Amino acid sequence: MHYQLFYWSGIQGRGEFVRLALEDAGAPYDDIAREQGDDVMVQYLDGVHDGPLPFAPPFLKAGRLLIAQTANILHHLGPPLDLVPDSESRRLLAQQLQLTIADLVAEVHDSHHPIAGSLYYEEQRSEAVRRAADLRETRLPKYLDYFEQVLERSGGHHPLHAHSYVDLSLFQLMSGLEYAFPRAMLRIGRQLPLLRALKERVAQRPRVAAYLASPRRLPFNESGIFRHYPELDDPA
Amino acid sequence: MHYQLFYWSGIQGRGEFVRLALEDAGAPYDDIAREQGDDVMVQYLDGVHDGPLPFAPPFLKAGRLLIAQTANILHHLGPPLDLVPDSESRRLLAQQLQLTIADLVAEVHDSHHPIAGSLYYEEQRSEAVRRAADLRETRLPKYLDYFEQVLERSGGHHPLHAHSYVDLSLFQLMSGLEYAFPRAMLRIGRQLPLLRALKERVAQRPRVAAYLASPRRLPFNESGIFRHYPELDDPA
Repeated sequence: MHYQLFYWSGIQGRGEFVRLALEDAGAPYDDIAREQGDDVMVQYLDGVHDGPLPFAPPFLKAGRLLIAQTANILHHLGPPLDLVPDSESRRLLAQQLQLTIADLVAEVHDSHHPIAGSLYYEEQRSEAVRRAADLRETRLPKYLDYFEQVLERSGGHHPLHAHSYVDLSLFQLMSGLEYAFPRAMLRIGRQLPLLRALKERVAQRPRVAAYLASPRRLPFNESGIFRHYPELDDPA
Repeated sequence: MHYQLFYWSGIQGRGEFVRLALEDAGAPYDDIAREQGDDVMVQYLDGVHDGPLPFAPPFLKAGRLLIAQTANILHHLGPPLDLVPDSESRRLLAQQLQLTIADLVAEVHDSHHPIAGSLYYEEQRSEAVRRAADLRETRLPKYLDYFEQVLERSGGHHPLHAHSYVDLSLFQLMSGLEYAFPRAMLRIGRQLPLLRALKERVAQRPRVAAYLASPRRLPFNESGIFRHYPELDDPA
């Protein structure tokens, strides 16, 4: 299967969770908006095509299927890319963990946009400072302790006992958080040895390492979800 | 299968999407926290049991499975409760739509808690007024127009051409929004004839109607996700 991935061309964003799965599996895919421009993608949001309407990127074309919602795309890709264990109960657990990652990603986004996605960061900076403080003190520790416990309960290496798309997504989550909140993550990370080790292992997987070193991996930047604004991190 | 649903006893919240599916299907279930207290549920969050750890309610016990994340629970329940069409592509589309509903539900929650879930509404009221204005002017129309279009493209009656858990969730979404933002929904609803008709049809399904008239249906209240604060609605 040759896949077509649709996601904004200038950021890693939510598309990166799908991209990492495709790259780690060595699956052939076109990154449509990066190759042909965002406008080609936006036509699908406007509904010029037949079939299901996506609300937002990322979405994936896989043969006749058009699939939206990051976790849902990974749920679909898991079996053909060998990125999820075979049983129904494991697929459900993978999806449960992926959706919990997605919840945290949404909270990270809102830490720099607590009032409105349609406003600039600068128009909601003081609210962002308050929300980011709660994220660093309450939410990040709660979510990351949870994932650390999940790893502990599954033997320490993989949340699903075997490599899966959840490992890749936890790598991306930790990478983004360390980019956005380097000081807070240094503090919180001391309690997360299993998550930090998982992140290192994923980074060393041959296809992931090759991808990260390639121009296909966009750098984190301040248009994406994980943004580094020093005033939103722990005080120096 | 006799199910066990775990969700906070005092609110509809995210648990209501699961409850509606169980009720509409006439599936036997225990509503554990309402019958035995929230503490019994919290033990699972603390990980006293074997098996997968839920991050938050709702979660469902189905035989040996313990499944968390609302959309994931519905994905699992769809086939045995006959609440999703049979094909893999339809199941993916149902999940995509459910996850988009979940995204809006999270935005509705944050409209009264834009800074921190750990603070009282009164401690973030002025920020809530700003965020709710954006929700009413930008986000609600965008999401609801999307669902209206999905209905249009599928023939007008059911997003999946047949009754499914997505119909039930759209009913709950519309009901909650009309409770929280009656003035804004009167305005926005004029453009949403298909969604409003779907909501009425679902309310008249015999088992749903019986459930809504029973004491099992908690009223909406100001501890839940859909809260009615007049200052967050359109001006009178």
